[in-house]
Amino acid sequence: MNCCQKPDVVVSSESTFFSFDPQLPPAATVDQDVLVQIEAKDCFSNQITEEDQLVSEIDFSRINPATGPIYVKGAKKGDALAVTIHKIDLKQKGAIVTIPKEGVLGDMAEEARTVICDIHSDQLKFKHLNLALKRMIGVIGVATPENTPTGTPGRHGGNMDATVITEGATVYFPVSCDGALFGLGDLHAVMGDGEVCVAACEIAGNVTVSFKALDKLAPMWPCVETKDWLYIVVSDEDINKAFYEATRLTVRAFEGALDLDWHDAYMLASMAMDLEICQLVDPRKTVRAKLPKNLISIDLLLKAIRV
Amino acid sequence: MNCCQKPDVVVSSESTFFSFDPQLPPAATVDQDVLVQIEAKDCFSNQITEEDQLVSEIDFSRINPATGPIYVKGAKKGDALAVTIHKIDLKQKGAIVTIPKEGVLGDMAEEARTVICDIHSDQLKFKHLNLALKRMIGVIGVATPENTPTGTPGRHGGNMDATVITEGATVYFPVSCDGALFGLGDLHAVMGDGEVCVAACEIAGNVTVSFKALDKLAPMWPCVETKDWLYIVVSDEDINKAFYEATRLTVRAFEGALDLDWHDAYMLASMAMDLEICQLVDPRKTVRAKLPKNLISIDLLLKAIRV
Repeated sequence: MNCCQKPDVVVSSESTFFSFDPQLPPAATVDQDVLVQIEAKDCFSNQITEEDQLVSEIDFSRINPATGPIYVKGAKKGDALAVTIHKIDLKQKGAIVTIPKEGVLGDMAEEARTVICDIHSDQLKFKHLNLALKRMIGVIGVATPENTPTGTPGRHGGNMDATVITEGATVYFPVSCDGALFGLGDLHAVMGDGEVCVAACEIAGNVTVSFKALDKLAPMWPCVETKDWLYIVVSDEDINKAFYEATRLTVRAFEGALDLDWHDAYMLASMAMDLEICQLVDPRKTVRAKLPKNLISIDLLLKAIRV
Repeated sequence: MNCCQKPDVVVSSESTFFSFDPQLPPAATVDQDVLVQIEAKDCFSNQITEEDQLVSEIDFSRINPATGPIYVKGAKKGDALAVTIHKIDLKQKGAIVTIPKEGVLGDMAEEARTVICDIHSDQLKFKHLNLALKRMIGVIGVATPENTPTGTPGRHGGNMDATVITEGATVYFPVSCDGALFGLGDLHAVMGDGEVCVAACEIAGNVTVSFKALDKLAPMWPCVETKDWLYIVVSDEDINKAFYEATRLTVRAFEGALDLDWHDAYMLASMAMDLEICQLVDPRKTVRAKLPKNLISIDLLLKAIRV
């Protein structure tokens, strides 16, 4: 599939939702393996365009819109939905904000502030500084039986804010209803691991993806595949529990895939797995275990950690 | 300075210590800017050479030896001691262990086990698997007024287990007594961020370093400089407090170095700083903030976060 070819389907940002809800009517129904262009508003539903607009003054019920939901033909409960991200095109302007009492330094953050950032080719201008773009998708996931708000990360994906979810990556979700009812939004022009002030450079744009349903391979937590690495993405209010779960699944995967017993797999994880941070600023924090593809394939990982 | 040239001074692993103690007599006294080769035992004081030797059976009072202490001429209280790591040569065999109840999955770890790993050129053999070497130094630091055990990480360095402390890196420590009384040990052939099972591939070897004292620039926490990145390395039993402190210092550094006010610096940290894990398995956990050198220099960082 060529990422520069014309998309087969366009899903407009007119269709957004705020909860990964299995009851929502699909905004589009698409085949597997076709190119789907998804238009995404920014996380403020495009309400902030000037620096004198503070996050305290906008309609907060419209925070974190996801475009969709998209019904993927043939995806059924118990499958993994593989979503390959072919392209992320961003608009020309993004916004970053502070909110009083929010973020890792919430006790020091007093002021609501907005800074508009201009995008030029592969750079972003923040005040007098230029930063290299690192395009990524903050909210991405599938419907849950629990009907999860789009601002919350979980087993279905959602607001994971993982910088590794970028062009070229494939993300694997557990399907819990027919068609999966996929959506995405909350694009970032640049974000550091942690997203410490509670926002990144928030921006609207278009994402081109394709879907594939993998029979009976629903993973316990979302997984991401990049050129050289696999990731298991786990969220919990207690970051120590998130690290525990990411480590537990990695050890199980090494055990199952590499003909090791549990204690040997535990040692291997200590040498070959990196624990990394996605975001620390939702009530539920998100971490990821990073595994090398030269040790384990995505097929073996999904088999080892399926629901 | 050429890392392949003969060292000016060799400090033998006959001289080890187990506490970063300002009262210890120096094992060597060295000039700044000369090549010092430091021989390091492994973290078990080389007591484990076979797989039937379990960590439960060795002399635990000899865990985590550091070679030294080394008195650096001209280094005085309030200075930063810059230690450049020119070369890490490892022995041919390393060992990794599990210990009952230890590590991120302590509740699942029941067995004391030892696996010996052979090193061949740039690879390590663990059971039937080959892993690429990632040489690093686990314990590295200077004497503290509190007389800190070598197994503990803190403001003086110590058992930080930071994978970024490797060949080519320069590490900056706060000097708290004349001569700094530097030491290092606990080399690893490979370790993943987190060091989840409580051990890495533990190995003896020789490390070639040089020292420089920077007048009145003692940092509040150790810093590391690599080719493209700077790191602030913070330890705390509560990982959330460690992330808070690493973020607080990053924001202070951006504020001081880049002519930003606090809220703008907080936003910049949210976009340009990555929070990363060193280790999660000492009672005190260690994290690091990763800052790009194209935004801030080591000189400005040290000025911003000096004691």
